[in-house]
Amino acid sequence: MAILLKGAEVTAALNEKIARKASELAAAGVTPTLAIVRVGERADDVAYERGATKRCAAVGVAVKNYLLPETVTEEKLISTIEEINRDASIHGVLLFRPLPKHLNDERVRAALAPEKDVDGITDGSLAGVFAGTNTGFPPCTPAACMEILKYYKVPLKGRKAVVVGRSLVVGKPVAMMLLSQHATVTVCHTRTADMPAVCREAEVLVVAAGKPKVVDETYLSEGQIVIDVGINMGDDGKLCGDVNFDAAEPIVAAITPVPGGVGTVTTSVLAAHVVTAACRAAGVDEAL
Amino acid sequence: MAILLKGAEVTAALNEKIARKASELAAAGVTPTLAIVRVGERADDVAYERGATKRCAAVGVAVKNYLLPETVTEEKLISTIEEINRDASIHGVLLFRPLPKHLNDERVRAALAPEKDVDGITDGSLAGVFAGTNTGFPPCTPAACMEILKYYKVPLKGRKAVVVGRSLVVGKPVAMMLLSQHATVTVCHTRTADMPAVCREAEVLVVAAGKPKVVDETYLSEGQIVIDVGINMGDDGKLCGDVNFDAAEPIVAAITPVPGGVGTVTTSVLAAHVVTAACRAAGVDEAL
Repeated sequence: MAILLKGAEVTAALNEKIARKASELAAAGVTPTLAIVRVGERADDVAYERGATKRCAAVGVAVKNYLLPETVTEEKLISTIEEINRDASIHGVLLFRPLPKHLNDERVRAALAPEKDVDGITDGSLAGVFAGTNTGFPPCTPAACMEILKYYKVPLKGRKAVVVGRSLVVGKPVAMMLLSQHATVTVCHTRTADMPAVCREAEVLVVAAGKPKVVDETYLSEGQIVIDVGINMGDDGKLCGDVNFDAAEPIVAAITPVPGGVGTVTTSVLAAHVVTAACRAAGVDEAL
Repeated sequence: MAILLKGAEVTAALNEKIARKASELAAAGVTPTLAIVRVGERADDVAYERGATKRCAAVGVAVKNYLLPETVTEEKLISTIEEINRDASIHGVLLFRPLPKHLNDERVRAALAPEKDVDGITDGSLAGVFAGTNTGFPPCTPAACMEILKYYKVPLKGRKAVVVGRSLVVGKPVAMMLLSQHATVTVCHTRTADMPAVCREAEVLVVAAGKPKVVDETYLSEGQIVIDVGINMGDDGKLCGDVNFDAAEPIVAAITPVPGGVGTVTTSVLAAHVVTAACRAAGVDEAL
């Protein structure tokens, strides 16, 4: 019987801290503000935007929406971002990606000011998470994994952490963040030989494989802490993670549920990053 | 009896390719040129500069020296870098660090154009090595490790690579470069529990611990390929690596000697980066 690492508890604690810091900023005349830049009407983006807007409202973070048609020119999108860069009343930017194919992702990312890059997409933020410095922000999903581990007081120093997946949005940044917490970190991926054996050695296992239920009992061992980053639609029409929960639950010490795990925490992290960006811009202590 | 992975062979093969590309550029009216920016007279820097200058001369890369006094102001150093950025006849910059303490490392690094950053110190280069893209260049030392593995045709795909050390100049970038070659990569460091056991599991072991002979027979197992990045002065007054060579040699399959290993290859990689930067600037195919 594994302990459930529920996102809701992490989020509740984090939201309280964010709201406190936001009201501290409000007292200083600053409303922490997030710009959401969305190109087109992709259903996933619209749903995430709705969740993020609701979350931000609850903790005192204002949201300004920039909706651009699917057919927007690169020039128009970049000039919108530059306008946001110049707007001192906006502290953070969430830009939905992937962008439509006629837009150059690299040029668009490069237009964003790293200090407003609250979802870790600029070279400045990537360098920051790689170097372990405060340049920009890490992407929200790996930061949410770290918040869960922190909230549940999972020791990391000197322990074996294994990350499944090497994407730039989850696997690589979470590996760097675990390393900065002094874990011994292994990154495995589709080319890894005998991945189950590698994963069984983990004390902390972060799974961002992008495939439903791919991690089963052969990957797991007793006492492990498992963070499941996946959100997939299972064959049964229900949401499921990248870990086969029913197989894992009797074996491991603790695991995040899907839904109700990492995904729950992501928008709180986004709001926290906006508040931190506002603190940095206003010269206010950023510690939440 | 381990095979010796001698740097000289790697360098000879690489130099030939660099010289060929440099003469291709020369025929197009471009002399690939490296600016070496040195603040003060630190003996290590002077020695490395001498080696780099000699190496560059041998392969058709010009060197332009910018020597600044130990007491140089940050403004002067930054304006020198900006002058180099604007100078289209210069393709790459080597800036010796650490800088004297009165100079802000972050501001100085940020002044350098990433496309001329042939030793991987800018945020652009760090983001590039983290993301596995061609933005900027990786630092020369981890790139030298990869050149050795490539020259000696050490298979990496799906194999277990362990990196000892997590610095931004060697450990982290080499981990990312091994990952991009599809190795399963573990990074360990001073806080790692039972580092010998972790290292024994490696098929490829890259040691950048920064301590003389710290990796002994307890860290090693049969069949391993060992890349020793360390260059230290041993108790006996002789240069030695981070691996105890005499202990390793009877156990592992292959190992780089110190001296004569990774260090030998670094300046060739530097020259190669300058030639690549010149190709990119001139719109010439950069493949060596």
